[in-house]
Amino acid sequence: MALRTTLNTILGVEHPILLAPMDLVADARLSLAVTDAGGYAFLGGGYGDEAWLRQEFALLAQSGRARRPDFGVGFITWSLARRPQLLDLALEQGAGAIWLSFGDPAPFALRIKSAGAKLVCQVQTEAMACAALEAGADILVAQGGEAGGHGVSRGTLALVPAMVDLAGPNVPVVAAGGIADGRGLAACLMLGAAGVAIGTRLYATVEAAGMQAAKQRIVEAGGDDSLRSVVFDISRRNLWPAPFTGRCLINDHLKRWAGRELDLMRAIDAEGPRYAAARAAGNFETAAVIAGEAVALIHDIPNAGEVIERMIGMATALLREGAGYCRQDLPGIAAR
Amino acid sequence: MALRTTLNTILGVEHPILLAPMDLVADARLSLAVTDAGGYAFLGGGYGDEAWLRQEFALLAQSGRARRPDFGVGFITWSLARRPQLLDLALEQGAGAIWLSFGDPAPFALRIKSAGAKLVCQVQTEAMACAALEAGADILVAQGGEAGGHGVSRGTLALVPAMVDLAGPNVPVVAAGGIADGRGLAACLMLGAAGVAIGTRLYATVEAAGMQAAKQRIVEAGGDDSLRSVVFDISRRNLWPAPFTGRCLINDHLKRWAGRELDLMRAIDAEGPRYAAARAAGNFETAAVIAGEAVALIHDIPNAGEVIERMIGMATALLREGAGYCRQDLPGIAAR
Repeated sequence: MALRTTLNTILGVEHPILLAPMDLVADARLSLAVTDAGGYAFLGGGYGDEAWLRQEFALLAQSGRARRPDFGVGFITWSLARRPQLLDLALEQGAGAIWLSFGDPAPFALRIKSAGAKLVCQVQTEAMACAALEAGADILVAQGGEAGGHGVSRGTLALVPAMVDLAGPNVPVVAAGGIADGRGLAACLMLGAAGVAIGTRLYATVEAAGMQAAKQRIVEAGGDDSLRSVVFDISRRNLWPAPFTGRCLINDHLKRWAGRELDLMRAIDAEGPRYAAARAAGNFETAAVIAGEAVALIHDIPNAGEVIERMIGMATALLREGAGYCRQDLPGIAAR
Repeated sequence: MALRTTLNTILGVEHPILLAPMDLVADARLSLAVTDAGGYAFLGGGYGDEAWLRQEFALLAQSGRARRPDFGVGFITWSLARRPQLLDLALEQGAGAIWLSFGDPAPFALRIKSAGAKLVCQVQTEAMACAALEAGADILVAQGGEAGGHGVSRGTLALVPAMVDLAGPNVPVVAAGGIADGRGLAACLMLGAAGVAIGTRLYATVEAAGMQAAKQRIVEAGGDDSLRSVVFDISRRNLWPAPFTGRCLINDHLKRWAGRELDLMRAIDAEGPRYAAARAAGNFETAAVIAGEAVALIHDIPNAGEVIERMIGMATALLREGAGYCRQDLPGIAAR
């Protein structure tokens, strides 16, 4: 069974499921697993690391399995503005789509579209959506506050239909934030989305480029175990522009500093190196595991292909049974 | 066309749509409009005002249209604990269900269930859901942070399926927060909810007990125009226990004090009376309009019956078309 929306045609894929470009976690290995399963993969270009990007493209090329238009690259827009040559690199390597998040996409739009790639803009507010549409976005990703990592606060459920109304019939909207299984996928189609972007659920897979201990924490975390804050950004001396904050799993470090961000900034000469050491050592009581509220729905670490297969299986079953809720009863007589 | 889930049978209604017990806004008039349209109504008992409750029950009785089991009453649990006689009043008046939010339902559960009424518990976290199930909840309302008024922060999209998994097959889950049209209703059914609770969308109706200027602000607000804070609670000297905050539309007063709550508490001898006067006068640049993120989807002030009719019409259309997304294509061949 396959799931089809307008997104399948636009991106040339079997299922309207996108691998969110999780910074460094979404590498060539995870991307290949996702495209093999019928989804569309975005390499996690993040802040922009040229050596990493060249290496991952080389791995895609070596795989022999990769059809380049099945792959895109995601960048943090405000960071890409400091390293615009990385966009050229991605396009020269044949990226079929460029996903821009967190900043003005306009300076990059012409370069992307004239290379024949799709411009995918992730937005969190109406103002950002208007700017993205103005810049010529081919696809809008409406990211709710449930998402792991950077984002804003509005919930996916009301954000997606608002973005669908704003985008109109010609620009498909992809839902992101809080989606981990076929229920979320089917729900987002009902909201008017043409597909979903998956982060945290694909982080907790065999192929994702993350430490096993981090993946295990995602499995163990409940829905109340994540928090949106700037603590981990301060800790790694990586200050973001407002209104963006980052959702991570709650750990000792976050409990200690959440709500005391100014104190953390004052203590950063000691805390910065301590945090960096914890990251290197995989000590996740100090280092952040970047994950979203969908951790409540994640209970194992399967292969990425199995995640997608389960999502499609559950979503198609729900969608096929949806009509069963509808009855032709006479109003006023029913169930009384 | 009617929409049927297990909730219809449990509550004896035509559609699985609940009027959320918005404090004072959900009065007898709005409740009658909702039940006439096939939904289930909860009077907004709120903090507990005996005169108001007696008056609204008298109006229900006078209407002649009301079948009492079609009506419930909602209370703020921690406030009801100070006025438990109001629960007796509601049950004596024949309330078919009692909706408890924000506090421990256990002290009231036996009284409610032995009167033959349904115990409806609104929860925002796993811990609260476990307490509600332990107390014998007949229905769980999973309220996401998108909701207007008091709540917590988790988004509805990932919260609902987590609560469905926790509740198991015998306790239906109703989704609340961010739902304003048939897209949200259909989406929540895909998430595993048995129905939805509607607040803000039914506030902006002809029958709701709110000032026209407040309803008009809901119509005019966009999705980024609300904020979850404790500013309006401080302003009306109405302090709530953690972790609850209240979502309102952003106005001059909220812009002035959000993030400066301690300053507001210090200035409360001047600000308190100013706020009370603004509430009385319907000056909504100072007084709060309590509304959720679904304002992004609300563009008019129709009758409540029309809101429900539109929701059912849109949801049934989407659910009947859902199977159209599913194709029996061979994997790997599709759309390439």
